[in-house]
Amino acid sequence: MSTQVIVLNGGSSSGKSGIARCLQAVLPEPWLSVGIDSLVDSMPASLKTSPAGIDFAPDGGVSVGPRFRALEAAWMTGIAATVRAGARIIVDDVFLGGAASQERWRQALDGLDVLWVGVRCEGEVAEGREIVRGDRVPGMAAEQAEIVHKGVVYDFEVDTTRTESLVCARAIAARVA
Amino acid sequence: MSTQVIVLNGGSSSGKSGIARCLQAVLPEPWLSVGIDSLVDSMPASLKTSPAGIDFAPDGGVSVGPRFRALEAAWMTGIAATVRAGARIIVDDVFLGGAASQERWRQALDGLDVLWVGVRCEGEVAEGREIVRGDRVPGMAAEQAEIVHKGVVYDFEVDTTRTESLVCARAIAARVA
Amino acid sequence: MSTQVIVLNGGSSSGKSGIARCLQAVLPEPWLSVGIDSLVDSMPASLKTSPAGIDFAPDGGVSVGPRFRALEAAWMTGIAATVRAGARIIVDDVFLGGAASQERWRQALDGLDVLWVGVRCEGEVAEGREIVRGDRVPGMAAEQAEIVHKGVVYDFEVDTTRTESLVCARAIAARVA
Amino acid sequence: MSTQVIVLNGGSSSGKSGIARCLQAVLPEPWLSVGIDSLVDSMPASLKTSPAGIDFAPDGGVSVGPRFRALEAAWMTGIAATVRAGARIIVDDVFLGGAASQERWRQALDGLDVLWVGVRCEGEVAEGREIVRGDRVPGMAAEQAEIVHKGVVYDFEVDTTRTESLVCARAIAARVA
Repeated sequence: MSTQVIVLNGGSSSGKSGIARCLQAVLPEPWLSVGIDSLVDSMPASLKTSPAGIDFAPDGGVSVGPRFRALEAAWMTGIAATVRAGARIIVDDVFLGGAASQERWRQALDGLDVLWVGVRCEGEVAEGREIVRGDRVPGMAAEQAEIVHKGVVYDFEVDTTRTESLVCARAIAARVA
Repeated sequence: MSTQVIVLNGGSSSGKSGIARCLQAVLPEPWLSVGIDSLVDSMPASLKTSPAGIDFAPDGGVSVGPRFRALEAAWMTGIAATVRAGARIIVDDVFLGGAASQERWRQALDGLDVLWVGVRCEGEVAEGREIVRGDRVPGMAAEQAEIVHKGVVYDFEVDTTRTESLVCARAIAARVA
Repeated sequence: MSTQVIVLNGGSSSGKSGIARCLQAVLPEPWLSVGIDSLVDSMPASLKTSPAGIDFAPDGGVSVGPRFRALEAAWMTGIAATVRAGARIIVDDVFLGGAASQERWRQALDGLDVLWVGVRCEGEVAEGREIVRGDRVPGMAAEQAEIVHKGVVYDFEVDTTRTESLVCARAIAARVA
Repeated sequence: MSTQVIVLNGGSSSGKSGIARCLQAVLPEPWLSVGIDSLVDSMPASLKTSPAGIDFAPDGGVSVGPRFRALEAAWMTGIAATVRAGARIIVDDVFLGGAASQERWRQALDGLDVLWVGVRCEGEVAEGREIVRGDRVPGMAAEQAEIVHKGVVYDFEVDTTRTESLVCARAIAARVA
């Protein structure tokens, strides 16, 4: 069976979405790329500054509430259905709940051929890249660098600390069946 | 049964995505907002300048090929599944194929409670707003103003030519069951 | 003498930058378009959330401090020099200080042929367009709609409440010498 | 005398604007950051696809014409005036003309204390980062990697190929008088 979903998990500013774009460029078939950022974008403005939705604290902390979780669960189901309907999808996410987050995806993607990829980046380096980007709440990168990998099981891991995103993408692509 | 999907169809620069944001603001429940632009964004760069994918001609013409159609069909299926899993969704699309485009959505959304909304804007006014936006291929607005409504059947229609998006959104919201 | 600078003053979401893009499209000569937003963008991130720089309150209030004022003064001087060196410039600004803001520009642009344009929009309509845009602090539009025009003297005024930006731009262009 | 202008020159996707943001974060005084991209943004849309203005070929080649040159010269004069009026400025540019481009800046900035910084990045790595960004014409990075440094004289050079932007910025900041 050939790979149908690539899940990239990593902290903020670890390089996930850049790797996703590189994967789209190097993989021979067309892959869609979606991410947790696109889910947040699709939500009402009121949910983006609410404890019931998603809340970005000034120190970089991120907390999500029940309304966010409900929409996220429906979104995951929709992604699985898109894949079952024939599209290949690269998902990039930030597993704020570590193993529990992975378990939610595992249930949603049940029966699909998934490649689980950890995208690591040393906290200090990710923090510098957060400054480079200039559009992120400072502190998110450092805060998330370790916790998002806690208890998560991967098929493959890349580390962008000293390796270019395109090189990481080529290594991931070599694991795509 | 209560409305589960609002489909906004209109030409480029007719005001669909602005109306979608207003709907999110005025409707009491949280609604996700997705659109054809987000599908295009999620595609590989190579498909965005290809006859097999989607091609934007310098004169504002847009043509789509078989690879685009295949991914679009899977995406529609995914949206329907997201709704069945409990999320309310506002979809904005450009029915380049008129009635045929609506038929594709009708099949994908089968069994769901859909509010079909036509978003009209006189070609000349849409053309001016295209200049205001500054990030669209000139000519798309005029080209699409009429053809996207050809043969399409609506539950409700709004016209942004002389009515603000927020006012249009309130009128649509009043039709949401 | 021919017009060298067009200053557009209006509250947030009144349509200034859209009018500027339309002016660039309808005027026969090439005009540069710069605005207070581009000055803010060029500042260090730390000044964008600081009482010494510029501070956007959650209720839509905007306050600026001494470091912002110093950089703004230098920026105004630079714009005047750019014009004296031969470029035509459209400036869009939000005169938070009303007549005092205009006086600062008057001194900076001394000796140049300036067309002062007021861009009005009824507060309630501007507030709706703020929702349409989706990327502004809610409340800025209503807060600024009136105060920015207080004591300001114009050569010409437009009102985007019921007139398209392109139509406003054409009327302004007809006043350009 | 203390440094008043930092000029960063490098090819597309070499990391200039990221280094500029890091410099703003690490330097103790507030510095404005402007670049050739902001000049292009401020031009009329018609000049961005015209041989008289600036033209981006599908293969990554960039050519500029007389109208672009005239506006650019006025813009350089304006930046110098902004600095003379008291603002510190980081400029990022792409010296398509190599030494001739530097000479234009040298004349505009005459009498000011300038730190000339070369931002290098191996063509192949810059090309990969161009894919990561996803919003640049493919080919620009490789095309420009070497030619922009031809005959240019620097006070200091950084290479982002294997060094993070923040680390490069700290090294540059140490040279700021």
